Amino acid sequence: MRQAGRYLPEYRATREKAGSFMGLATDKNFATEVTLQPLDRYALDAAILFSDILTVPDAMGLGLSFAQGEGPRFEKVVRDEASVAALHVPDMNKLKYVFDAVTSIRKALNGRVPLIGFSGSPWTLACYMVEGAGSDDYRHVKSLMYSRPDLMHQILKINALAVADYLNAQIDAGAQAVMIFDSWGGVLADGAFQPFSLDYTAMVLSRLKTHAEGRQIPRIVFTKGGGLWLDEMKHLDCEALGLDWTMNLGKARALVGGQVGGPGKALQGNIDPNVLFAPPSSIEKEVKRVLDSFGPPHTDMHQTGPTHIFNLGHGIHQNTPPEHVTALIEAVHKHSSRSMI
Amino acid sequence: MRQAGRYLPEYRATREKAGSFMGLATDKNFATEVTLQPLDRYALDAAILFSDILTVPDAMGLGLSFAQGEGPRFEKVVRDEASVAALHVPDMNKLKYVFDAVTSIRKALNGRVPLIGFSGSPWTLACYMVEGAGSDDYRHVKSLMYSRPDLMHQILKINALAVADYLNAQIDAGAQAVMIFDSWGGVLADGAFQPFSLDYTAMVLSRLKTHAEGRQIPRIVFTKGGGLWLDEMKHLDCEALGLDWTMNLGKARALVGGQVGGPGKALQGNIDPNVLFAPPSSIEKEVKRVLDSFGPPHTDMHQTGPTHIFNLGHGIHQNTPPEHVTALIEAVHKHSSRSMI
Repeated sequence: MRQAGRYLPEYRATREKAGSFMGLATDKNFATEVTLQPLDRYALDAAILFSDILTVPDAMGLGLSFAQGEGPRFEKVVRDEASVAALHVPDMNKLKYVFDAVTSIRKALNGRVPLIGFSGSPWTLACYMVEGAGSDDYRHVKSLMYSRPDLMHQILKINALAVADYLNAQIDAGAQAVMIFDSWGGVLADGAFQPFSLDYTAMVLSRLKTHAEGRQIPRIVFTKGGGLWLDEMKHLDCEALGLDWTMNLGKARALVGGQVGGPGKALQGNIDPNVLFAPPSSIEKEVKRVLDSFGPPHTDMHQTGPTHIFNLGHGIHQNTPPEHVTALIEAVHKHSSRSMI
Repeated sequence: MRQAGRYLPEYRATREKAGSFMGLATDKNFATEVTLQPLDRYALDAAILFSDILTVPDAMGLGLSFAQGEGPRFEKVVRDEASVAALHVPDMNKLKYVFDAVTSIRKALNGRVPLIGFSGSPWTLACYMVEGAGSDDYRHVKSLMYSRPDLMHQILKINALAVADYLNAQIDAGAQAVMIFDSWGGVLADGAFQPFSLDYTAMVLSRLKTHAEGRQIPRIVFTKGGGLWLDEMKHLDCEALGLDWTMNLGKARALVGGQVGGPGKALQGNIDPNVLFAPPSSIEKEVKRVLDSFGPPHTDMHQTGPTHIFNLGHGIHQNTPPEHVTALIEAVHKHSSRSMI
């Protein structure tokens, strides 16, 4: 997550050229350049599209901007009947810059590693659309949800249809896997997460293309703080679940794996990105701890179950020393079970 | 939580008189006045001491201040060998204003409802001591934890001893129950939560007085985001566990209750405070949902198990309409099982 980003000096140089974050994200050449930068530095197994999760509400006409030193902000907020009525699934042509970037990156990768496309989840997009910016209490979006669940469901339905169209267009453009980031699912109460976040993630999944170019397109769902709801998330129609650092991978494996009638889902995660501020020897120790918590691969060929895709548990911090990422990746390769690479 | 606070006009009037937050907290008469204000307005079953969780590190000499419109801030931060070496369990005389407030409140309550004392957990205090203020990524405290676990353990041990002394002195002063707020335990990775937060909460509990005035002093532990670790937290030597809104109470009850050899712990929680921004009819619906999620009381007298103490899942928001709190409390009384009141 945020494979390409401000922690890399080469990224900062490209961003300088582009003038702004959106200048970077909307130009396919710049987007290709920064997407490939981490691959030139690190032995990574996949590339992830450089973009922002808020491109979809921006295409809905809400007016996304990134002020210097602040997070994203929308010109318009969606908090009442009129603004919800004005909301529509956007014309995918408005997001052509993303699909062009996907095609350009895929071409530049030239088979080196697969390319992962992504989107925010319907709920996570709604958080920004209602709050108008990041939040630390989600007061506005939760007020709307508890006061006017009908309006909230209308927003979420539009978002789900939009996200499905958006990810399908990324697949058409060349994405070989797609990831749904439910970054704010974990702020919801039990009993609200299920109808307002999980159900709309499921709606997106039900509309996604599962194959392209004759191959399967794996779908990954990440809910920050979702560990508590894994026994419900395991029923999602996707191939992998991303986990943050609070969840024990062994417990997750036991919960998600071993369903009757099919193999379990792969688990992606989940080291705390703050580990990267520790010296390399501590990083190696923590990598080993995360790998060990998942446990050994199945030795019985006939027994299927989840596999582990090592990843950070959330985005990398902008002050991360790049050479510590090298230490992390070397530790993963050193300690991973052969059969799991 | 934050029973007394900025959402109440009478609190704002008293704070105006006191001049500042610490002016309020350090004056036993003001502290008594604001602690009792919610009881005059609402049919509550207990009072909670008005104070701040950062009084202990302030007494350690770190210099607590509250700038207007900002959160708490410490003059000194604890991030290196020298500052850790300088750290000591504070002289409890420096916290006399808290114990005086407890005695004064207890006297003013005159048996109306019991008084709950509280402290931050060793880990939560350490977060502020290392970060110097609130944080949204806990980068400094986690960097120290992963880089120099020895220093982190030293801070936490001092904090645990200080918190135990602090709560015991509150009990001596008249507190009839005590609560440990591990507000930031949930930001830790699985595998770090246990040695850096849970173990030090356990250390505090092991040193607490269990009886005073010939009666038991119930101990409540609240870890925000702790739902994932309930199967470990259930072994804590305390009478109740507080839960935030992400945890299903029925699941929690099944996990925590029914241990061989003793009754389960009481569960306290867990409605999302943002529900209070919805109209009264929605508040009632959500209260009922939370009560129902816990399930009915045991009908078999011989079967012991956890009971439910209705509470918010975290602090109340300063913009909460006070009359919505009335609606919440009326709904709790209307829908609670008789035997559970």
